Amino acid sequence: MIVNMSEKATEEQIQHVVERVREAGYQPHLTRGTERTIIAAVGSGRRHEIEALQVAPGVDNVVAIAQPFKLVSRQVRPERSVVRIDGVAIGGPEVVVIAGPCSVESHEQLLDTAHAVKRAGATMLRGGAYKPRTSPYDFQGLGLEALKILQQARQETGLPIVTEVMSTEDVDLICEYADMLQVGARNMQNFALLRRLATIQKPILLKRGPSATVKEWLLAAEYLLSGGNHDVVLCERGIKTFETEMRNTMDLAAIALARDLSHLPVIADPSHGTGKQSLIAAVSRAAVAIGADGLIIEVHPCPERALSDGPQSLDFAGFARVMEGLSEPLRRTAKISLATAQAI
Amino acid sequence: MIVNMSEKATEEQIQHVVERVREAGYQPHLTRGTERTIIAAVGSGRRHEIEALQVAPGVDNVVAIAQPFKLVSRQVRPERSVVRIDGVAIGGPEVVVIAGPCSVESHEQLLDTAHAVKRAGATMLRGGAYKPRTSPYDFQGLGLEALKILQQARQETGLPIVTEVMSTEDVDLICEYADMLQVGARNMQNFALLRRLATIQKPILLKRGPSATVKEWLLAAEYLLSGGNHDVVLCERGIKTFETEMRNTMDLAAIALARDLSHLPVIADPSHGTGKQSLIAAVSRAAVAIGADGLIIEVHPCPERALSDGPQSLDFAGFARVMEGLSEPLRRTAKISLATAQAI
Amino acid sequence: MIVNMSEKATEEQIQHVVERVREAGYQPHLTRGTERTIIAAVGSGRRHEIEALQVAPGVDNVVAIAQPFKLVSRQVRPERSVVRIDGVAIGGPEVVVIAGPCSVESHEQLLDTAHAVKRAGATMLRGGAYKPRTSPYDFQGLGLEALKILQQARQETGLPIVTEVMSTEDVDLICEYADMLQVGARNMQNFALLRRLATIQKPILLKRGPSATVKEWLLAAEYLLSGGNHDVVLCERGIKTFETEMRNTMDLAAIALARDLSHLPVIADPSHGTGKQSLIAAVSRAAVAIGADGLIIEVHPCPERALSDGPQSLDFAGFARVMEGLSEPLRRTAKISLATAQAI
Amino acid sequence: MIVNMSEKATEEQIQHVVERVREAGYQPHLTRGTERTIIAAVGSGRRHEIEALQVAPGVDNVVAIAQPFKLVSRQVRPERSVVRIDGVAIGGPEVVVIAGPCSVESHEQLLDTAHAVKRAGATMLRGGAYKPRTSPYDFQGLGLEALKILQQARQETGLPIVTEVMSTEDVDLICEYADMLQVGARNMQNFALLRRLATIQKPILLKRGPSATVKEWLLAAEYLLSGGNHDVVLCERGIKTFETEMRNTMDLAAIALARDLSHLPVIADPSHGTGKQSLIAAVSRAAVAIGADGLIIEVHPCPERALSDGPQSLDFAGFARVMEGLSEPLRRTAKISLATAQAI
Repeated sequence: MIVNMSEKATEEQIQHVVERVREAGYQPHLTRGTERTIIAAVGSGRRHEIEALQVAPGVDNVVAIAQPFKLVSRQVRPERSVVRIDGVAIGGPEVVVIAGPCSVESHEQLLDTAHAVKRAGATMLRGGAYKPRTSPYDFQGLGLEALKILQQARQETGLPIVTEVMSTEDVDLICEYADMLQVGARNMQNFALLRRLATIQKPILLKRGPSATVKEWLLAAEYLLSGGNHDVVLCERGIKTFETEMRNTMDLAAIALARDLSHLPVIADPSHGTGKQSLIAAVSRAAVAIGADGLIIEVHPCPERALSDGPQSLDFAGFARVMEGLSEPLRRTAKISLATAQAI
Repeated sequence: MIVNMSEKATEEQIQHVVERVREAGYQPHLTRGTERTIIAAVGSGRRHEIEALQVAPGVDNVVAIAQPFKLVSRQVRPERSVVRIDGVAIGGPEVVVIAGPCSVESHEQLLDTAHAVKRAGATMLRGGAYKPRTSPYDFQGLGLEALKILQQARQETGLPIVTEVMSTEDVDLICEYADMLQVGARNMQNFALLRRLATIQKPILLKRGPSATVKEWLLAAEYLLSGGNHDVVLCERGIKTFETEMRNTMDLAAIALARDLSHLPVIADPSHGTGKQSLIAAVSRAAVAIGADGLIIEVHPCPERALSDGPQSLDFAGFARVMEGLSEPLRRTAKISLATAQAI
Repeated sequence: MIVNMSEKATEEQIQHVVERVREAGYQPHLTRGTERTIIAAVGSGRRHEIEALQVAPGVDNVVAIAQPFKLVSRQVRPERSVVRIDGVAIGGPEVVVIAGPCSVESHEQLLDTAHAVKRAGATMLRGGAYKPRTSPYDFQGLGLEALKILQQARQETGLPIVTEVMSTEDVDLICEYADMLQVGARNMQNFALLRRLATIQKPILLKRGPSATVKEWLLAAEYLLSGGNHDVVLCERGIKTFETEMRNTMDLAAIALARDLSHLPVIADPSHGTGKQSLIAAVSRAAVAIGADGLIIEVHPCPERALSDGPQSLDFAGFARVMEGLSEPLRRTAKISLATAQAI
Repeated sequence: MIVNMSEKATEEQIQHVVERVREAGYQPHLTRGTERTIIAAVGSGRRHEIEALQVAPGVDNVVAIAQPFKLVSRQVRPERSVVRIDGVAIGGPEVVVIAGPCSVESHEQLLDTAHAVKRAGATMLRGGAYKPRTSPYDFQGLGLEALKILQQARQETGLPIVTEVMSTEDVDLICEYADMLQVGARNMQNFALLRRLATIQKPILLKRGPSATVKEWLLAAEYLLSGGNHDVVLCERGIKTFETEMRNTMDLAAIALARDLSHLPVIADPSHGTGKQSLIAAVSRAAVAIGADGLIIEVHPCPERALSDGPQSLDFAGFARVMEGLSEPLRRTAKISLATAQAI
């Protein structure tokens, strides 16, 4: 067993662990490295006692060694990063809501939606021009035409635009029209794309891959930062699990975890995260409660006629209700007595 | 049930399926498409006989339409169920917090914890007497001795007791001491145990299996209700995923989904759900925001010395902070303008 | 980074690793324990060079420490175990084939099947008396009546019987009728059941849980051995994955891995492992090619009328074809030239 | 496509769906059951418009019946495809073995390996020039320099070359040097790359994504065929599961399944599929037994010094032993009596 002390561990904390290792029936063996001290438990003792040291003061963890990412970590930059997109600040005190259709389908569809989501409180607009689709026979997006429609929507509403980029070859074109570029979940480990996006001056919305660990997600962000682009927002959009009633499983705790490990802002996508209209309001509330810096939500004038992602899109009234739900107190359901909670 | 015939199915094969559907107690209803024929089994017959047709000649596959659970569903009982345990009501307007150590380790450890969690606002006490452990060499619980200590804690604090039952042979004994019996995650599909618990007069806390779908979880509850025990509380405690930084992935959206599909109360276990002290406060808030009827949280006087689950246990001060966090508004982090949210 | 040397590592091998650690830019730091030497790489060097030492001579692994299981491991018992059931030896030179219906449904169904599988080469008979079913409304098995029918089949055919036990309360009764008791996949971590079965004189067939790691599976076996029952046969029956075209994903490599880590025999269940009649012959061949000590296969006189598991059951002719397939050479498909393969 | 109405659906809601089905180009066909109505969409129309009805009022869910892929399916082309690469035929009677290092590291390393694998019976050479790596700090490949070394190896040995392409921008360059282009597992759903590769004249080796279903894998191949490139070889390289002792879980049954569903050749990658030197021989045998058209295996002159994938690379002697293992009969372990197997 290896106990890995924190970089900030005091000598007193190290000695505490050394004593506990001895108590547990092992001989402690210290290796004082350049950055930190590790303590090996030699011999045969009571294993669980060493495992439990994971929560002793000054202990970072037991067995595992240093994380592989650097620039995205809070060890390198303890204060939280704020990413600014044309007046909108993600990672600051305000929860930012990005909304809009999955795909841009027509001028009317996008403009109507843009005005509606702005009225309801959204401060950025989403809309797909290039669509990653599992089948080649599905709608693949309007491409350049969609980018032009998005630009008009920004002119009319003032909402900054985020749209997905799927290929290095489209980067320059999309940069002319969008304020923020999205890397989709299936491209999270498209390293050629990440390396190219590391060299541009636009902020990036980096979605977590459907089967990626938080560590892999942060390493994908590390590609962007290490290549020179520090304006990165992480987005949890649900992971693949055995559940079949929902399209994905929203890993809300990963939002809190990513914010512990990294200084980058983290937002939530309850539309892809659940794939179900009926769950979006509740999941949005939970995401804000757990500390998300923002939400990205799919909205369509008539979801049952959407060319993509209809089942998880809200209509205008549904989106307005989600926004209202965010204003209600946490204890709408919880009637915990403040008196007892504060008594200890 | 829909039987989907292959594109190459012969008329003879189609007629064979039609006859078998009739034999199984259903009315067959054919839809002849341009490429293939589908046969619907209408009415109520013997479901497994239709499922078995998957291997009849000319059949591509069989698709179930209706949900397989009945008594737990909101179609059978639209209003929400409330489970009462000695004065505590789970499923009512109050969020119920159950707290206590993973394992009962000693009289002093449990009594100190019981008093501390009561002071902080918990209204039920948890504590393991019989422990399911992956390795036979890990601490297996104090058994009867633990049950007696739990009883003393109830006498001193008035908190009702919930403890895990692992075997049909222990049911009678545990019923003498506990107010509610917990079925652990790894026993969710221990059908012999479920059938036995369906016959007792005590409420059951049914944890979701680490790889179970929501449907399988509800079917496990159906074993209890169909056997006669309607006092069932569901508990989401995290599912197994590829993530390695957390012990499990807390499927918070499943709480909202289970409450949509079923009338049974649903609580959350952020301790097992994350396996990490540092995430419990945030996940508890999110669980309440998403509509959980309660929380079950592991608390230990000194987590780094706990005989089990130390890394996910809170000390007394940590638990009090979680309880305080539940009283803070949702918008501690979200500064969404009410004005815009209500404007649409 | 921690390099964990083998217990048998020579001084020369240790010095080799020490040099490689230095070459990689780290300072090596040795901890000579009571059983083995571990080598910490101190400082900051080229991480992948240490990872690659995983295959250096004398190195057991990098980072991870000792396995938690003991009695099942080949470190404790290097020679392979053979489990004998009434004349049948599992783990010896012969591949043992166990066959029979998922559930015992009637005297005629079982006896016909028993004779047919014996004719085709099976040397043991399977048949469920107590069935674990996801829904309480599905067929739950004939219980004692099924046990009596199984006994008759053994008297008529001489085939030893294996049947599933679901509860500690049924153990004594089943021991009167069966030659081997099966622990089903969903009960792999039913520790109360494992502890009870550790005390009986019958061999146990321990199925791997659908989401269990190989390590968890071996720890379940460790419950049996450490409790006194050494006659344990492991059975890989497929794990849960995202694949939807098959019921489970057959983890064939786990058979080779389990035989590397443990001395216990390991057999394969291609019926549950795929859930598809059409794949059973190919998967059976692959299981034998990878080193499985046996197969357990579901056979039914008329799969489309089976009360359970019809879609994955073979009829008598199908089973005979699987047996014939096992006699064909590996290179039925592979036409690799022996000349070139042996030239190096 | 089947639209499954809710039990509470009104007649008006049913009629709305009927109209929408007609608008989408299908003929609606109603089945009115005792509890609910289902509406089949018959003929060929716009699939996504039916999928979007999932959120129409009164609809429970929408179920797809037919497989979504076409050109890759055996319904369109029943006979097996053979892909020819400069004299090597994948999908014919011979099992093709492709071998070589994970990354091209130097002229000497690659040439030595090329000669060794040729001597042992390999008929194609693999070697990475552009490497997809989880961390930006890992070795990223030698790029053009590697391509030139690969070209020299082909000139010296006559072995055709396969190497990975990660970006649309590299396609033209790689086509100058390689005989076959590999799409790596993490790029299986990089649709921009697939669309570009559909237009070239070189065969493609399409690896299955680590969390992709067989259906998603075939749809990725459909992008290539529908875009004009019919020379596609599928490669199963292991999927992500909960197992931690192996890098991936080799889904060998998927090879048999993919060959049932599609006419494309399917090969196996036991190196990535297990991540463990010690399992490669056994898994290679199993892959051939289950019907794989070929193998791709990582070989390195000195695995413990490899810049990538050392733990799963074989040295020259190890690779020769794998090749010899493929020549041994299936029943090396299985001693099944032919007499009984053929008796039925």
